[in-house]
Amino acid sequence: MNINKYIDHTALKADTSSKQIEKLCAEAKEYDFFSVCVNSYYVKKALAELRGSSVKVCTVVGFPLGASTMETKRFEAMKAMAEGATEIDMVINLSAIKSGEWQYALDDMSSLAQVVHQQGGLLKVILETCLLTQEEKVKACELAIKAQVDFVKTSTGFSTGGATLEDVRLMRSLVGKMGVKASGGIKDLETARNMIEAGATRLGTSSGVEILKGLKSSASY
Amino acid sequence: MNINKYIDHTALKADTSSKQIEKLCAEAKEYDFFSVCVNSYYVKKALAELRGSSVKVCTVVGFPLGASTMETKRFEAMKAMAEGATEIDMVINLSAIKSGEWQYALDDMSSLAQVVHQQGGLLKVILETCLLTQEEKVKACELAIKAQVDFVKTSTGFSTGGATLEDVRLMRSLVGKMGVKASGGIKDLETARNMIEAGATRLGTSSGVEILKGLKSSASY
Repeated sequence: MNINKYIDHTALKADTSSKQIEKLCAEAKEYDFFSVCVNSYYVKKALAELRGSSVKVCTVVGFPLGASTMETKRFEAMKAMAEGATEIDMVINLSAIKSGEWQYALDDMSSLAQVVHQQGGLLKVILETCLLTQEEKVKACELAIKAQVDFVKTSTGFSTGGATLEDVRLMRSLVGKMGVKASGGIKDLETARNMIEAGATRLGTSSGVEILKGLKSSASY
Repeated sequence: MNINKYIDHTALKADTSSKQIEKLCAEAKEYDFFSVCVNSYYVKKALAELRGSSVKVCTVVGFPLGASTMETKRFEAMKAMAEGATEIDMVINLSAIKSGEWQYALDDMSSLAQVVHQQGGLLKVILETCLLTQEEKVKACELAIKAQVDFVKTSTGFSTGGATLEDVRLMRSLVGKMGVKASGGIKDLETARNMIEAGATRLGTSSGVEILKGLKSSASY
């Protein structure tokens, strides 16, 4: 298992500096991670830093609250893709879900899937599982399938909780061959392996380097 | 002092339901708050709920990380104003500040001030003081003046800290006649009064009702 290729190497804090983005990209090249995941302000810079490598640029939309309008999410995604992002992690409209406005939540995703796929990109939908009931998690996965997004993703890392093995197993059981991205609180090799075993096909983490170092030291035994 | 007219009655959590927005708006009418502050998904609904009252609709842009592009912030603000918001609380680009990209941070604000003022609205810039050094706070206020925004605001309420009296005093001393909005952690009448005494001309809080109830009970002595 090439665990490095599961990792979206992530830096999304509000006060991330351009030096930190340079470091993130250098690490992503060194460890050959799947992508770097940055805020949309940094898409251009990340693309420039990664030139010549196979590491992709992933960014976030409607992040982390998911409560902007679908038109704004669409604009944000199109702008990011025009600047070089090929993966878009959007936050589901949690307010719509909590209000029983399932059609809006679906349209929000479908509308984004359409523009992202038109540009040859890939769309992940962040469910923010820590804020959902079991029933809402199931329904959100069903909507994600209907909307033809490419991944369901557990968490933003900015709410009350991160990825749990239970949620990853549930999502895997529901979405068929769709991708499952586990994110939030994945800080070591053991957790990373457990998430993959539970069904994750991508990991969002700011601890990619630590995870890979763990792999090296465990391989030496 | 009509403390009610200092208050932006606020509900910005990701999972706020439409019922909670209805309650927020009903309270805002009952207590005659200055505005309700909601995520942009809820601007239309808030406007409908507040019809016939003088309570305004305030919304947030680039919230709470401030790390979307200025084009996206501008689109988000224009859309919100087209739907009826008259006050826009944007988050400053903290990444630009931490990278020494002061010109970008200025352009981000100026560009938004322009579109908001064109539509007859009012722009507040959230500095997220808890993430800034003293020097950065001063410089951010200077930029806000240059950008001709209408208010500087302390906090999103989603980061590591909220409004402090010290920060409000500093901001008041720097921005002249510009508005100062204190937000984050203002939960009772005493704190509200202290913030106003320190120089705040607006308060962002989800505890407006508690604050006004405090006023009634203190008035009865």
